[in-house]
Amino acid sequence: MNKKLILTERPKGMPNSNTWTLKETPIPEIQEGEFLIQNHYISLDPAMRGWMNDSKSYIEPIALGDVMRAGAIGKIIASKNNTFQIGQTITGWSGVQQYTVSNGENVYPVDDRQIPMTKFLGILGMPGMTAYFGILEVGKIQEGDVVVVSGAAGAVGSVVGQIAKLKGCYVIGIAGGKKKCEYITKELGFDAAIDYKSENVFDAIKETCPKGIDVYFDNVGGEILEAALSRLRKNARIVICGAISQYNSMDDMKGPRNYMSLLVNRATMQGMVVMDYAEKYPQAMMEIAGWMMQGKLKSKETVFEGIENFEETFKRLFTGDKLGKLLLKVSE
Amino acid sequence: MNKKLILTERPKGMPNSNTWTLKETPIPEIQEGEFLIQNHYISLDPAMRGWMNDSKSYIEPIALGDVMRAGAIGKIIASKNNTFQIGQTITGWSGVQQYTVSNGENVYPVDDRQIPMTKFLGILGMPGMTAYFGILEVGKIQEGDVVVVSGAAGAVGSVVGQIAKLKGCYVIGIAGGKKKCEYITKELGFDAAIDYKSENVFDAIKETCPKGIDVYFDNVGGEILEAALSRLRKNARIVICGAISQYNSMDDMKGPRNYMSLLVNRATMQGMVVMDYAEKYPQAMMEIAGWMMQGKLKSKETVFEGIENFEETFKRLFTGDKLGKLLLKVSE
Repeated sequence: MNKKLILTERPKGMPNSNTWTLKETPIPEIQEGEFLIQNHYISLDPAMRGWMNDSKSYIEPIALGDVMRAGAIGKIIASKNNTFQIGQTITGWSGVQQYTVSNGENVYPVDDRQIPMTKFLGILGMPGMTAYFGILEVGKIQEGDVVVVSGAAGAVGSVVGQIAKLKGCYVIGIAGGKKKCEYITKELGFDAAIDYKSENVFDAIKETCPKGIDVYFDNVGGEILEAALSRLRKNARIVICGAISQYNSMDDMKGPRNYMSLLVNRATMQGMVVMDYAEKYPQAMMEIAGWMMQGKLKSKETVFEGIENFEETFKRLFTGDKLGKLLLKVSE
Repeated sequence: MNKKLILTERPKGMPNSNTWTLKETPIPEIQEGEFLIQNHYISLDPAMRGWMNDSKSYIEPIALGDVMRAGAIGKIIASKNNTFQIGQTITGWSGVQQYTVSNGENVYPVDDRQIPMTKFLGILGMPGMTAYFGILEVGKIQEGDVVVVSGAAGAVGSVVGQIAKLKGCYVIGIAGGKKKCEYITKELGFDAAIDYKSENVFDAIKETCPKGIDVYFDNVGGEILEAALSRLRKNARIVICGAISQYNSMDDMKGPRNYMSLLVNRATMQGMVVMDYAEKYPQAMMEIAGWMMQGKLKSKETVFEGIENFEETFKRLFTGDKLGKLLLKVSE
């Protein structure tokens, strides 16, 4: 039997017990050209909240009645496809379910002999790609830049900051709580951390970036985006990657009141969607894997277990109660 | 005697009768190396409102007690400077006063034999330069682009739209009132106009730009910026030139609530300050003058008279009760 999570109601605000329904259905027979993936880990990403809204975006909304869309990684346990073989490790848009039938579209095999499977949903998956292309191609960092990143202990932010350090930038991370702040400074080598839960972020940015900010990588939106805008240097770049503080309050979403700082500082605010860089993923993965092997790039995953715990786990994205990449293990 | 307008109180919201004081003082004696300009026309620009606030910006705030900063144009009536001679027409930061003593810094002579003096404060002055560099270098328009400009009947917007037309774009202007809308479509050749005073701008943009917007040139901010954000095409560019709807409500300034459209559409929002392009002004003026001579670029000025009418005239920037470039004639 296949346990799968169906989107049954579009949430207003934070998802709740009516949002999804866990269903159990027989594992489908695979047809010629298809193969069956047993999913081991499901990726939990802030962007998933946006896909649940019935509004125009960079990707179609998840239809009511469909399996909840998610990235996942697992192993092929049956195959009638010549290219994909039993035992291969496969990642792709498999959804929040234990088993996925695929014809090979939108999934790809990975080599997890040297690197744990979980990394392919984190630093070597979408979050890693987002960080890599966001900070290098949109942020256009240069040696000596002052770089500020929010969500700094998360799957994207932690990689953004480390890549900026590798490129010779001065890096400040904004995160929630002492533990996360210590993680990014002591383990990841950020130059400074701001704890938005206990500090005034406006003042703390002023203190840690006396000369102002060259690049701000935004994962959170809201008042933290305003705080960064208030301290831009001339020709600064803001990378708009996410706005997690706003995702559950779409009706009352706040725009940055001081966006005219863009004019004063001739600054640029640019949005990005990682899929646009798909052709260059292999190159980025190679470089990231290289840095990992050399010990220059670190990453952590927080793993919970059981597909029935999806809702509780998903909410941790918004409460921040996790470190690094958030994953759900759905089978052995 | 020299009549001059002194900034005496920083306004909160719309300036009022306490904001400025008209003073009359003797015309100063010029020293060796100096010359005396009799100002004919004073330029009234939305940016002046920002300079009156005591806050960090791209230019120093006007000090209380100083002559109100403004661009102006006039003629030299006395000179002890070898380079600048009596009879020359001079434009620069002369301030809201009838006579200005200069040593040649920040002013430059213009040739007004072929082109009326007033044009050098409008289409051949800051507004024209702003339009030219804003739409070409920040907006990066290309043939076939759908371009939307707000404040479209104003000194900047009217030139933005016409340059975009010259470059083969489809151009929609947003302006207030039937008269302005007719001006930009019938006289200036815009493809369509939206009257924000009588139309729902969200709906009207949807109707006039069914494929969405490639470049939005923003002079106004507020809900019109949000309406434009709601209809961006992929890789769209927003040029942040001004936010006149917000200048008198700084404490309660509104940010664009739907700025995440930048992410969805991989779009860019970039601020500009015209002074950054000062080195290239001569090139831009030549090209603009060329277009004017060929009848391809039109402009209008609305001229009021009397330095004592400055306050009433200045407010027209915000009520919109003028067409094209707003000027105040302060002497014959």
